[in-house]
Amino acid sequence: MERVNKLILSKAGSDVEMIPEVANHLISSGGKRLRPMLTLATAAMFGYRGDYHVYLATSVEFMHTATLLHDDVVDESDMRRGKSSARMIWGNQASVLVGDFLLGQAFRMMVETGSMEALKVLSNAAAVIAEGEVLQLSVAKKMDTTEDDYIAVIRGKTAELFAAAAEVGPIIAGASDAERTALRDYGMALGLAFQLVDDVLDYGGSSADLGKNVGDDFREGKVTMPVILAHQRGDAEEKAFWRSAIEDGENDDVALEKARRLIAKHNALSDSISRALAYGDAARAALAPLPMSTGRHALEEVIDYCIARIS
Amino acid sequence: MERVNKLILSKAGSDVEMIPEVANHLISSGGKRLRPMLTLATAAMFGYRGDYHVYLATSVEFMHTATLLHDDVVDESDMRRGKSSARMIWGNQASVLVGDFLLGQAFRMMVETGSMEALKVLSNAAAVIAEGEVLQLSVAKKMDTTEDDYIAVIRGKTAELFAAAAEVGPIIAGASDAERTALRDYGMALGLAFQLVDDVLDYGGSSADLGKNVGDDFREGKVTMPVILAHQRGDAEEKAFWRSAIEDGENDDVALEKARRLIAKHNALSDSISRALAYGDAARAALAPLPMSTGRHALEEVIDYCIARIS
Repeated sequence: MERVNKLILSKAGSDVEMIPEVANHLISSGGKRLRPMLTLATAAMFGYRGDYHVYLATSVEFMHTATLLHDDVVDESDMRRGKSSARMIWGNQASVLVGDFLLGQAFRMMVETGSMEALKVLSNAAAVIAEGEVLQLSVAKKMDTTEDDYIAVIRGKTAELFAAAAEVGPIIAGASDAERTALRDYGMALGLAFQLVDDVLDYGGSSADLGKNVGDDFREGKVTMPVILAHQRGDAEEKAFWRSAIEDGENDDVALEKARRLIAKHNALSDSISRALAYGDAARAALAPLPMSTGRHALEEVIDYCIARIS
Repeated sequence: MERVNKLILSKAGSDVEMIPEVANHLISSGGKRLRPMLTLATAAMFGYRGDYHVYLATSVEFMHTATLLHDDVVDESDMRRGKSSARMIWGNQASVLVGDFLLGQAFRMMVETGSMEALKVLSNAAAVIAEGEVLQLSVAKKMDTTEDDYIAVIRGKTAELFAAAAEVGPIIAGASDAERTALRDYGMALGLAFQLVDDVLDYGGSSADLGKNVGDDFREGKVTMPVILAHQRGDAEEKAFWRSAIEDGENDDVALEKARRLIAKHNALSDSISRALAYGDAARAALAPLPMSTGRHALEEVIDYCIARIS
């Protein structure tokens, strides 16, 4: 991971001063580096000894960073990881363009590995992630979003990159197709668990855990799992409340308190947590056929870490 | 080109409805398809008979379209190709994300060709283009931008994609390194000529030629070649005018008229045209060592077409 951090700093460099400024603001702000860790651990599982897993891990982190820069513009967010978001400091313009630059650098590094299969997986992920984000935009502020619709959104916008990160490790290490599929499944389930935990924290955590403000999803009119469940289980008056809050933007602090109360009343937070736990179990089950190793152990710990953020 | 148009429509498709809506708004709005034409013509020059030049040409057009979608957000533009810009209809959010989707699709298509060399050239271009755009952001509204600074900006933000488009044709056709370099040089010079002509049209053309409003560059505080030359050649009072207009945003219609007058007084438009013509000649010279063919003839016609937009 030390080598990934070094490569991140070197590849975020440019003669154009603003690029490392903006990129490092986000990169050095204590991101968890979960996704590149998946690539390193899954390559290590198959005894990979070269350098290219470091390149792929860095590509994955750059794709993630580019997404965050673009997301902050899309969501008009003020905060990210407990600091002012890049767009608040350098503007939307720099956030869009530095995101594009990091995406270009990510593809350059993939090309350096010479692995066409890894390129296939990660270019596919780039398109699927964007598709998931656009899908989220179309269901945003729509209270008729179903649980299935929502899972489709987070499968694209979050879980796909976890899946791709875990799949390119075995690819670069020359593992079998079955091993590759198992690790892709692991990453996909882990990513779904991760996002559901994030959703829960937005209604139940504190700003410190989250690196953003509690209630941000609510104020942005985002339809997430706790909201879907509470709405589904609510009576007519409650359903009307959710529509006015999410669709019409009646989302002041009083409304947020009411939302939290309704979510608690209908066990919508604990049932979102159950779903996250189920995906965590699915991730663990996907690893079961693989031989025990320090790499596999690390991957199991990542599941625990993701889930433990809730408590 | 018919096959490129078909592939464009198919690859801009998605189950997420908003994606083809936004993408086709721009794609079907009468873009000139100059860049994909370069890829087709340069592949044809070497007798290429497969399908992959169509994939690469479509990738190039998608990279260009993604850039336009992101540029409109960055420049806060209302118009593009004589229509409302996508961001005015669907918002900044959709423009950023559909741009990201098209970039992902572009890389997917490159992967389908199986050409690692083409991927190298185009991923490099993606990073360099973004770098050029960020550089433009840092020199924006700065009247101490030199002619050399400005050429560095447009080399990245505009000419690099022309160069890459012309280079992947010979790559996919298996041409020699010398042929590849000649065509890259052609594309680079053509791109510089193209951008300088665009700059000139912004002060001297009509909205109809330009697909955007005359004076947009001026109102956005963009330092372009005519502005640099007029400023350089102006007296103290004129230099102060340029600073207030470009740096402090004193750019109403009266100021625009004055800007046009000063540009004319110092032959800044005609000298920008001379520079465009010189790059046009350089593009022609780069083609000289290559055997005459319909492909080469088409590439020469593109030079004439780019320059002829001025008259």
